[in-house]
Amino acid sequence: MPAAFDEPTRNFLNEPNVGVLATVSPRGRLQATPVWFLLEGDKLLVNTSQGRVKLRNLQKHPYLALTVVDPKNVYRWVQIQGKVIRFDNAIGARDIDRLSQRYLGKPYPYFSGDKPEHRVSILIRPLNVHGMMG
Amino acid sequence: MPAAFDEPTRNFLNEPNVGVLATVSPRGRLQATPVWFLLEGDKLLVNTSQGRVKLRNLQKHPYLALTVVDPKNVYRWVQIQGKVIRFDNAIGARDIDRLSQRYLGKPYPYFSGDKPEHRVSILIRPLNVHGMMG
Repeated sequence: MPAAFDEPTRNFLNEPNVGVLATVSPRGRLQATPVWFLLEGDKLLVNTSQGRVKLRNLQKHPYLALTVVDPKNVYRWVQIQGKVIRFDNAIGARDIDRLSQRYLGKPYPYFSGDKPEHRVSILIRPLNVHGMMG
Repeated sequence: MPAAFDEPTRNFLNEPNVGVLATVSPRGRLQATPVWFLLEGDKLLVNTSQGRVKLRNLQKHPYLALTVVDPKNVYRWVQIQGKVIRFDNAIGARDIDRLSQRYLGKPYPYFSGDKPEHRVSILIRPLNVHGMMG
């Protein structure tokens, strides 16, 4: 049963704050790193590159938590526990530019050998939404 | 082999920024929620209350990631992958006051039925430290 976002949460998620995406490896090693994200209707979109730990973890265990803390008020935060419903390489390059527009106001500045064809979009269905709107 | 903190990381961790603590349940459900933390020598200290999901998760699987993002510069962040080396109820009430002094400048304001005797300190050994000092 997917969880829906209420209006304050939706407004908060539409602000361009960075999230922390938590995944787990098959051996039980946790990873939690900052990510850009987008609200895509009732789903969440993140984007990564082939070979990254978070992608490998999610391909093996598609459950995650995405936590967003308001940098101006750390008592305003949301945790979304979710499940990946699609990995999409075909729209990966387009989506990293959409994300980059949201966060940097310009197309994605590729670096360190990263390439458009390596980008992968990850579409997430929220299963549980929890937080504090302090 | 425990990981050591270099000087810039240590300085960053000594700033009173909130971390996001990621744990996993025995069924593979990720949890990632904001936490107060303290650098305690080469270890990290967090504190929670009996019955909380993060404590139950860590009692069953003592591996975690603690990620700290600078709210003034989100490209400055550290991820610490670590292992719990001690749960300590005896110093739990003392430590939540130490944490509260660090973050709020006053003793911990208990709420919602939480009590000093419920507080548990969690001492974490860093196994891997990774981040960006952007």
